[in-house]
Amino acid sequence: MTETPPREDPRPDGLRSAPSLILVHTGDGKGKSSSAFGVMLRAVAAGWKVAVLQFIKSGDWAVGEEKIGRQLGVDWWALGEGFTWDTANPDHDREVARAAWAKARAVIEAGKHRLVVLDEITYLLTWGWIPIDEVLEVLRARPQGVNIICTGRDAPGELIGLADTVTEMRSIKHAYDSGIRAKRGIDY
Amino acid sequence: MTETPPREDPRPDGLRSAPSLILVHTGDGKGKSSSAFGVMLRAVAAGWKVAVLQFIKSGDWAVGEEKIGRQLGVDWWALGEGFTWDTANPDHDREVARAAWAKARAVIEAGKHRLVVLDEITYLLTWGWIPIDEVLEVLRARPQGVNIICTGRDAPGELIGLADTVTEMRSIKHAYDSGIRAKRGIDY
Repeated sequence: MTETPPREDPRPDGLRSAPSLILVHTGDGKGKSSSAFGVMLRAVAAGWKVAVLQFIKSGDWAVGEEKIGRQLGVDWWALGEGFTWDTANPDHDREVARAAWAKARAVIEAGKHRLVVLDEITYLLTWGWIPIDEVLEVLRARPQGVNIICTGRDAPGELIGLADTVTEMRSIKHAYDSGIRAKRGIDY
Repeated sequence: MTETPPREDPRPDGLRSAPSLILVHTGDGKGKSSSAFGVMLRAVAAGWKVAVLQFIKSGDWAVGEEKIGRQLGVDWWALGEGFTWDTANPDHDREVARAAWAKARAVIEAGKHRLVVLDEITYLLTWGWIPIDEVLEVLRARPQGVNIICTGRDAPGELIGLADTVTEMRSIKHAYDSGIRAKRGIDY
């Protein structure tokens, strides 16, 4: 607990600049995607070209963020739209996942965006729908100056190991637990 | 660890709608303010009037977010600009803090904004610069339909108790620790 205002910058001396960073937002709490969209604002304000690739279509699907992002000139791909979640035909969803990753890989390797957001990519890794070794290799070998943010629960240890900065969003309490419905404008 | 894709919505049945919510983003990790700005995007996309009040001016001061926020029609007050951090004259900074809180209180009580972001307000509470009882009472008695997001480390227990949803951003690893400088476009 900080009880008095800080008087000095607590960051270490002798820092070096990295050409680009890999960030991971994981955990069971809110704010993994939202904070990626907040960083997107920063990057847009800095004049960067930004790409957002969304891997999962869910109840929290970021329709509002997509609308504003596009207005701001962000290239936006809603890649999770094709999932059927049909247990009778699991191969279809694996194909959709592989095609989504192929698109993301192409965007990263093209090197035209200084920020690439891989929103909710961790689920595809956890479910084994896309190959983690290939994802790690593409991130590691990315063109200089391409920053990446990966979001989603249960980020694999290898991805955490590769990342520069990893934040866990932990749910301390949630309105759902008190029986309150998700709220448009706040939750989605 | 989720090892198979979910087939059902895990949220409880019989949810009720709340007229508005109080969210808290706390913890030592990144993303507390960024995710508030992400929610701001959602609210703007939903057609809401949004206010952001920033209580601390720091190295991470959100110049880019402010620029884009204003472009999007967000009312934005950078209230922490007046702090001197002068140990020889601590009363000055207390006065700045009290004036900043008076502004925030007026914005909340006016009820004209459906989302009010109180960015980094927790520090002023922790340092005793503004009265927690008054802040809690203003939040509790806010006009119906005014949603609030409070951000900052070390959120007081009373604020966590009042909030509907609280997320702790935990730093798992940080580029600083590897000697990498904060990066414009990503960190500020």
